[in-house]
Amino acid sequence: MKQLLIASTSTVHGSGFLDYLLDALKIHFKKVDNVLFVPYARPGGISHDAYTEIVQLAFSKIGKTVKGIHEFDNPKDAIKSAEGIFTGGGNTFVLVDQLYKKDLMAPLKTAIESGIPYVGTSAGSNICGLTIGTSNDMPIAYPKSFKTLGVVPFNINPHYMDSDPKSTHMGETRETRIKEFHYYNSQPVVGLREGSYLQVLGEKITLKGPLNARVFEPKKTPYELKPEAELSNLT
Amino acid sequence: MKQLLIASTSTVHGSGFLDYLLDALKIHFKKVDNVLFVPYARPGGISHDAYTEIVQLAFSKIGKTVKGIHEFDNPKDAIKSAEGIFTGGGNTFVLVDQLYKKDLMAPLKTAIESGIPYVGTSAGSNICGLTIGTSNDMPIAYPKSFKTLGVVPFNINPHYMDSDPKSTHMGETRETRIKEFHYYNSQPVVGLREGSYLQVLGEKITLKGPLNARVFEPKKTPYELKPEAELSNLT
Repeated sequence: MKQLLIASTSTVHGSGFLDYLLDALKIHFKKVDNVLFVPYARPGGISHDAYTEIVQLAFSKIGKTVKGIHEFDNPKDAIKSAEGIFTGGGNTFVLVDQLYKKDLMAPLKTAIESGIPYVGTSAGSNICGLTIGTSNDMPIAYPKSFKTLGVVPFNINPHYMDSDPKSTHMGETRETRIKEFHYYNSQPVVGLREGSYLQVLGEKITLKGPLNARVFEPKKTPYELKPEAELSNLT
Repeated sequence: MKQLLIASTSTVHGSGFLDYLLDALKIHFKKVDNVLFVPYARPGGISHDAYTEIVQLAFSKIGKTVKGIHEFDNPKDAIKSAEGIFTGGGNTFVLVDQLYKKDLMAPLKTAIESGIPYVGTSAGSNICGLTIGTSNDMPIAYPKSFKTLGVVPFNINPHYMDSDPKSTHMGETRETRIKEFHYYNSQPVVGLREGSYLQVLGEKITLKGPLNARVFEPKKTPYELKPEAELSNLT
């Protein structure tokens, strides 16, 4: 049975890395002692080691050890033998580029589908969707495909932001961008505000956290989902 | 001699489409009666015809006629015989995808390098740089390459936004994103604030408009350029 937490962000304003998620992580990883961490998204260009240290510190608060996938001689084997997996945020293009270059997309999908508990934040959540076509990130690397794990049957838009009616900036709002996405793509998009996450247990997908999520489907008015709403039929 | 205007945006807050640029366009296109318009970026998914109508209306104010490249049977020939070219904003990925699919990237570069006056706004400016690796857009299409015209020896970041120190949003700031770009790429990046544009005349590149631009180079502190500053040696 698939077991995922797909979170908008690693960090909510005013608290430490993963702090707001620790209670949920404790339950999610209750049978996991050692977490395999995928640091490839490298937020701010941070090194794999430095990023892994940050994650170790956070998971130590709930009694888990963490090892970065870059520390293994064979990252495919690391995924195959993982008890639980966490992919952190950063740049989605860099993450996907690395997953393809190291031929890890398929093993990661297999591991998740076999029931290994997975947690993603931001870029690590984007890759759970069908494509990274609704990433907010700058395209600083060119991955060989935008297709990703597809372990949920829609796309994720993390860090979802509502439009600021006072803004004078002429760049597109998030909602406009996602509507544009639907001129060329048909899958639904779930905009997760910071502090929200999806819990996937088998085929059951539930919105968690204190905030609504915003769902975009082609040719439909976007709509809000309340916490504890189910998205299991969203395809 | 190359002749380009590379603008951050088509529209500044509180005025109409291209209004703030019309005086500059009048000079730039003084020997041009008919402008070839490239509507492929389709802002908000607008049709090529509808986008072309908006552009026609703007250019009619300075006595120019406009024809959309999509109206020609052979878009390559349209570029080869153009008196002047304008590529409008929208989604950079969609624009670049179309330019590659229609095999127009090379003809467009040739036309610009032969001296055909070119104007780009937003996505139409992004493509003047070496790559679209510093686009702000959502990756809603997968172009066969991120490489673009390279008619200036750096990258453009249009709609450049300064960080809001009051923001509680945990997504990356523009400056952070561009710094991340430089972990993987070496070319300078010119952040053009809305209302700014670069004028390229042969090898001379000058910042125009009322605002400073922000320049990012690898391993250097970002710095500001004042209006009328030259960027001719930025590579």
